[in-house]
Amino acid sequence: MMIIPATNLGLEIKVLSEQADSSAKLATTQIGDYTDEATVIEFAQGVDVVTFDHEHVPLTILAKLEQSGISVQPSSKALAHAQNKLVMRQALEKIGAPNPIWKAVSSAAELDSFIKDHGPEVIVKTPIGGYDGKGVRVVKSSGEVSDWLESQTLASRGGQLLAEQKVSFTRELSQLSARSRSGEFASWPVVETRQRQGVCSEVISPAPELSATLVSKSVEIAKLISESLDVTGMLAVEMFQTDAGELLVNELAMRPHNSGHFSIEGSVTSQFEQHLRAVLDLPLGSTEAVRPFAVMANIIGNSDKTDYLENYPQIMTKFPGVKIHSYGKSPRVGRKLGHVTALGDLAASCLASAVSCRDQLLGINIAKPE
Amino acid sequence: MMIIPATNLGLEIKVLSEQADSSAKLATTQIGDYTDEATVIEFAQGVDVVTFDHEHVPLTILAKLEQSGISVQPSSKALAHAQNKLVMRQALEKIGAPNPIWKAVSSAAELDSFIKDHGPEVIVKTPIGGYDGKGVRVVKSSGEVSDWLESQTLASRGGQLLAEQKVSFTRELSQLSARSRSGEFASWPVVETRQRQGVCSEVISPAPELSATLVSKSVEIAKLISESLDVTGMLAVEMFQTDAGELLVNELAMRPHNSGHFSIEGSVTSQFEQHLRAVLDLPLGSTEAVRPFAVMANIIGNSDKTDYLENYPQIMTKFPGVKIHSYGKSPRVGRKLGHVTALGDLAASCLASAVSCRDQLLGINIAKPE
Repeated sequence: MMIIPATNLGLEIKVLSEQADSSAKLATTQIGDYTDEATVIEFAQGVDVVTFDHEHVPLTILAKLEQSGISVQPSSKALAHAQNKLVMRQALEKIGAPNPIWKAVSSAAELDSFIKDHGPEVIVKTPIGGYDGKGVRVVKSSGEVSDWLESQTLASRGGQLLAEQKVSFTRELSQLSARSRSGEFASWPVVETRQRQGVCSEVISPAPELSATLVSKSVEIAKLISESLDVTGMLAVEMFQTDAGELLVNELAMRPHNSGHFSIEGSVTSQFEQHLRAVLDLPLGSTEAVRPFAVMANIIGNSDKTDYLENYPQIMTKFPGVKIHSYGKSPRVGRKLGHVTALGDLAASCLASAVSCRDQLLGINIAKPE
Repeated sequence: MMIIPATNLGLEIKVLSEQADSSAKLATTQIGDYTDEATVIEFAQGVDVVTFDHEHVPLTILAKLEQSGISVQPSSKALAHAQNKLVMRQALEKIGAPNPIWKAVSSAAELDSFIKDHGPEVIVKTPIGGYDGKGVRVVKSSGEVSDWLESQTLASRGGQLLAEQKVSFTRELSQLSARSRSGEFASWPVVETRQRQGVCSEVISPAPELSATLVSKSVEIAKLISESLDVTGMLAVEMFQTDAGELLVNELAMRPHNSGHFSIEGSVTSQFEQHLRAVLDLPLGSTEAVRPFAVMANIIGNSDKTDYLENYPQIMTKFPGVKIHSYGKSPRVGRKLGHVTALGDLAASCLASAVSCRDQLLGINIAKPE
């Protein structure tokens, strides 16, 4: 999704893809394994800046690039906080960003003690390698993560587990922002994110009926994190809005993020263009909303044979204003295959259009043609 | 510019480009000469629909494709009116669309007689092969087009020349519309186009202060032409708004057109997405404006060494909301290298931003950095 703004701005991009038939196939210049040092080093020769659309490139490889004088944005030092949830919790605590109660645990006894103090249920996360709800469990006893506590697994996931208080929250929010290499900072309105089975299902921009206090608190948190951790490019701060009316940081992503896809149509500058501007140290673009509300709904595969193009004629007739984004991926249950975005003056009607369009694309509740 | 909506909709596209380094290089699947019958026929194998981003593919080749059962949209029969200005004038006269006074001439005597009746100045056009002011001359005597009247040149440009009354006009307008294969029709607000040396310089959407009567007349003309000539896909009707307050058709284009580039950001559905929907016979998208006004300014090369990326830092700081579109072409005097678009509530401020941003990109009136 960075290909489009890169092309518009006349920037030449090179893409290292895992496979020839990836979503980035239009701009793929090399196919290879991003965990292989030689592959990444070869790829990085001759570019002005290396950046990412996921946070899984090993830090040791990125540090090697940096040592050889290649500009990596965000830097390996900043990215460590998005790769490792324990590193993140420690850093947030240090800078005074709001964490839920948490503890690094490395044994069943330590975890059970945390559960005793903060249970009956707690969240346990593997510090590295998780995404979309993977590597996260809600547990009542250490026995439910005994597999993760095995020494070999534990070593491969960061050496410890992260135990967190199960926060009682009203809803989840995400604060998108960008910071350029020379320190310019720009934020979007904080959005509401809705999850289904641990995966982002819908995003409402801006989060409806959020108090002005929390709106500014949210930007303050993002700015604090971005500056303290020296983030460059996009930063998504996923947060809980607690029942007590506080904000607590849940996760960080240092790249264009699913909760910012609404910005493609919804904002003067999309998160993808902004990421490019930020990592190239160009001035940032306006994050002004083009319409009062934007709602994005993810198209998540519900079978392995969904050919949702078949549903286009009926859906385009019903939703002439909803924008469809296909990622060109083969369908699979639980896989993000694309998203749709609806803009308008009312959050409720945008949400209804986006959800209904998405559901009908997936073949749910399609009325039989007469 | 069709690559982006095609990708978003999950449509597979194949592109026949003249050269490897074209603006469509991301999606180019074949490099070859579009005037070579074998090349075009080979390219067209296995696609659902063949369409165009210019109107210069010879009609004889398109007719061959059609005879072999390949869907060509718009059809060769419709496209003839965009390829040949005499065919267009004849057809518009037949269907009752408003032409300026015109005549097909094939000799100096015929032209001088037309000048005598409708001069002192008239417009002379070569029926085929002209664009961006090429193939158009304002003349006072046939001597000024004696080169075009030579038998060989005349034969290669359509056998006759088109002589037209020099219309006294207030401004130029363009009416964008799309028509799908099953006849669905959608129009955008009529826009004002400003030319510099025969080349489109700025487009203001919608045309400011146009009477409601002319707004609806404009759509009526587009609908009449689109339906009568069986146009599929985008149609741009370029018109004169005469001093007498009438609309007269100047030219037709049956493809996404420069006067519709504003729609990328300015409309819910861009002309590029709409063209794809129309030629594939999918339902058309909403043409609603996202902001009250959109202004597009073309970036036209003023030297052969303009590297306007150098000007990005200063320009992006001044115009955080203006969208830049580079076409990835090497600079050349008079060449369209890209465009910029500004959206907003007031036509005048959008125009000021777009023009100023464009001029500064080209290095005109750049204030020296302090």
